[in-house]
Amino acid sequence: MGRWQPDARARLQESALALYGERGYEETTVAEIAERAGLTKRTFFRYFADKREVLFGGSAALRELLVGKVAGAAEGTTPIEAVAAAVEATSDMFEDRRAFSRQRSALIASHPELKERELIKLATLAEAIAEALRRRGVGDRAASLAAEAGIAVFKLAFDRWVHDTERTLAQHVRETLSALQAVAAGGGAGSSAPSPRARSRPVRRARR
Amino acid sequence: MGRWQPDARARLQESALALYGERGYEETTVAEIAERAGLTKRTFFRYFADKREVLFGGSAALRELLVGKVAGAAEGTTPIEAVAAAVEATSDMFEDRRAFSRQRSALIASHPELKERELIKLATLAEAIAEALRRRGVGDRAASLAAEAGIAVFKLAFDRWVHDTERTLAQHVRETLSALQAVAAGGGAGSSAPSPRARSRPVRRARR
Repeated sequence: MGRWQPDARARLQESALALYGERGYEETTVAEIAERAGLTKRTFFRYFADKREVLFGGSAALRELLVGKVAGAAEGTTPIEAVAAAVEATSDMFEDRRAFSRQRSALIASHPELKERELIKLATLAEAIAEALRRRGVGDRAASLAAEAGIAVFKLAFDRWVHDTERTLAQHVRETLSALQAVAAGGGAGSSAPSPRARSRPVRRARR
Repeated sequence: MGRWQPDARARLQESALALYGERGYEETTVAEIAERAGLTKRTFFRYFADKREVLFGGSAALRELLVGKVAGAAEGTTPIEAVAAAVEATSDMFEDRRAFSRQRSALIASHPELKERELIKLATLAEAIAEALRRRGVGDRAASLAAEAGIAVFKLAFDRWVHDTERTLAQHVRETLSALQAVAAGGGAGSSAPSPRARSRPVRRARR
């Protein structure tokens, strides 16, 4: 314990999630998370404010990536395309964390307190994206709408991706964006079958 | 005090908002709100759980209206059209509360705690709309996307409407939906000017 750990942050996140799954989120303490990771409580607090924030530790990096990509999109890129490319670019960040993300999503879905925190995170991301679009000269309303659309796509694509085993998040993002475009244009009226990979998804409605 | 008040709920809401504006949200007590409305604390608690909930007292009625309209849309109506019509239908509910809504929006924007509560309200509405669409046989993803799009439109349209003096919420909803459709289809690249707020048009629906 206390040795320098090159990936202390990731280890704390994994330990936390494992414990939340085994004992329940409410019952787990910071001391237990640190111990499981082979670290001290002090080290824990160097990375996270509390046991809830362990689950949201990647928000700043995510925001930076999204904003950077939107800001750096080629001139003339449409707002929705700039946002879609940015959201697609998050794929690399998550690609080796699918199992972690799936556990995290399930945990969040079953805890109203965590769901609220997740909503705030997503709203903050949408605001940051809209602001990045405005700085590119995109009109106020178009910026907000493209950002909201992008975050809706991200949320749904992410949800499908964590329950998939093959396709990348980027592929899900593209597919979900196409679905949004079809819906916005007035499509999707029928009982369009859910994507074949969604078979094993738990029925989220049932839990609420 | 204590007499039967036909519109106690609305009076409590207006008193609360007036006090929040005058003294600040944090400083205002439930007792003061009740007194200002000429009612008792006990009456206050018959309608609202606390001083925060005074600002969110209409959520259930709003959800009912939206879900009812989506459920009752004519067969063959596309998801986005069913949602748009439902959101448009909220216009009557708000039409005589523009000044109240403007004050409420400003208050919420300046209090993170209230912003979070508003986010939760909107997410709950989106979930209810998506569920209503699924019950109509709309596919899972299309239902979620149409609902998210509808709530994004509602949020932005509402924000413009409270700062407008003439056009109805329904008109703003239609206009914002068109803007979303244009953005989703790849439009909105330029620095599209914010929509003119129709200042010069005669006031026709101002007071009822």
